[in-house]
Amino acid sequence: MAPFAQVTPFAQVTIVGLGLLGGSIGHAVQASLPGVTVVGFDADADVRAKARELGLAHRIADTSESAAQGSDLVILCVPVGAMDAAARALAPGLSPDALVSDVGSSKGTVARALAEALPGHHVIPAHPVAGTERSGPDAGFATLFRNRWCIITPPADVDAALLARLVTFWETLGARVETMDADHHDKVLAVTSHLPHLIAYTIVGTASDLEQVTQSEVIKYSAGGFRDFTRIAASDPTMWRDVFLTNRDAVLEMLQCFTEDLTELQKAIRKGDGTMLFDQFTRTRAIRRGIIEMGQDDARPDFGRGDHSGTA
Amino acid sequence: MAPFAQVTPFAQVTIVGLGLLGGSIGHAVQASLPGVTVVGFDADADVRAKARELGLAHRIADTSESAAQGSDLVILCVPVGAMDAAARALAPGLSPDALVSDVGSSKGTVARALAEALPGHHVIPAHPVAGTERSGPDAGFATLFRNRWCIITPPADVDAALLARLVTFWETLGARVETMDADHHDKVLAVTSHLPHLIAYTIVGTASDLEQVTQSEVIKYSAGGFRDFTRIAASDPTMWRDVFLTNRDAVLEMLQCFTEDLTELQKAIRKGDGTMLFDQFTRTRAIRRGIIEMGQDDARPDFGRGDHSGTA
Repeated sequence: MAPFAQVTPFAQVTIVGLGLLGGSIGHAVQASLPGVTVVGFDADADVRAKARELGLAHRIADTSESAAQGSDLVILCVPVGAMDAAARALAPGLSPDALVSDVGSSKGTVARALAEALPGHHVIPAHPVAGTERSGPDAGFATLFRNRWCIITPPADVDAALLARLVTFWETLGARVETMDADHHDKVLAVTSHLPHLIAYTIVGTASDLEQVTQSEVIKYSAGGFRDFTRIAASDPTMWRDVFLTNRDAVLEMLQCFTEDLTELQKAIRKGDGTMLFDQFTRTRAIRRGIIEMGQDDARPDFGRGDHSGTA
Repeated sequence: MAPFAQVTPFAQVTIVGLGLLGGSIGHAVQASLPGVTVVGFDADADVRAKARELGLAHRIADTSESAAQGSDLVILCVPVGAMDAAARALAPGLSPDALVSDVGSSKGTVARALAEALPGHHVIPAHPVAGTERSGPDAGFATLFRNRWCIITPPADVDAALLARLVTFWETLGARVETMDADHHDKVLAVTSHLPHLIAYTIVGTASDLEQVTQSEVIKYSAGGFRDFTRIAASDPTMWRDVFLTNRDAVLEMLQCFTEDLTELQKAIRKGDGTMLFDQFTRTRAIRRGIIEMGQDDARPDFGRGDHSGTA
């Protein structure tokens, strides 16, 4: 393909919310879609200043209304509980033919909130399944979406041409795109993302509160497995509070399944049932292999982490 | 220090069990203690053949009795449930002044088993808190113990000079050494290692069994957090069965605390108590910081993993 012949599905993209996800989109669009203008906005003036310094967008606007003006794609990258207010704030600046999307981790609640906040506008929710434990405007990077899945949850009456452009947009940023309905998304993510975060937050909290083991011992001997959980338990608290409040039913359903399974293993330990423990511990290896074969994790032992580079 | 003036706390070291830990000790001793002879043994003839091919020791013996002959340090690197049998098998070859140690993840049960199996011999149990999810003779590497803690649990009547030599041995392999009593070790490791593995095995099992979400969806969207749990749930099933059978009381006690905390978070989600969720999710960040400051994890986002190197 000749230079500048690149498909640019949108001419101007507005990013509202300049944290890890919004900042990464800003970097990625500038890297992958050189003809596209990127406009950014964040409700926090300090974040806007930082975003200007980091060059997260070509222009950082001081209101979301002015940020939306002239854009044919507006992506909301705020915590899911803030989507409604963010959408209402930018609505006056929105072109009638602009597409509004988002990156929220729960989709049913967000789809309803955006449809209500932006009547008559085109809304297609999306969720790139990508991130790190970092947050804030300096946490983003251009390759965050590469080889990660982006799930788009189009409404029943979606404009097929707009959907196709949104798919192209995410593919250009390096993502693989899948579409499904919002309810199914919320069940899938409840198990692949929300329940793991809940469990990690819980166990890290449990370990902090013990009477017989000090917090400094927990830290010192964390390489036995515990440290793995502390990474996702360091994720943004506001984002995760909102996820659990907006995807409550699916999370509680998955949690119920987990608790039943944990109770069975507890019983096997209490009864000394080694056969049951061995069988359970054997069948979990296949999933890891599948994840590595699908290119969704690092194949090297210990995630390939520089095990001794804590000071790096 | 001049070459060859290195302190060699033992002249000949026997390693019984040539998996991840035993193999790593073999590599590490050869790398760090060039004057020391390393003898290896494994009950599995295929593992012995592989160990010879990989050079895990200077000599691989065909019986544990002959492997023990002439060594002043014998380290048992077998699953904790196999310690008793392994100790009895090597006893006839053991010198009266030899020190027997191990690398088992639970210490109370192992200390009792070794004391009973080897009456009149010097036994000082130990546990290097280091590992990866890999197992087998080709999983080991010389730097596994570098900057990791090794917990030694000396009996009340320990020979102080032998203890000092064992401390020097582990320090020479790069470990930092701490001593504590076996019961306290078992409580500490129940929370920093055993409970995390139990939780990880459980959630990976739960995700495999869902009716509404397929296993291929779980694999596909695992980057949302789930994949982190699959790493430790890919650990050796025999080793972990034995850990739970031998450290039952401490694991069940920690599991009880975890379940109580999880129930509280479940209730907060059900009631929509965002304040409680936010507060819980905020206080868990400090532990991650502590772990990184202590050099016990990689400070880079996402463990520094090559996020897109699944094909590596």
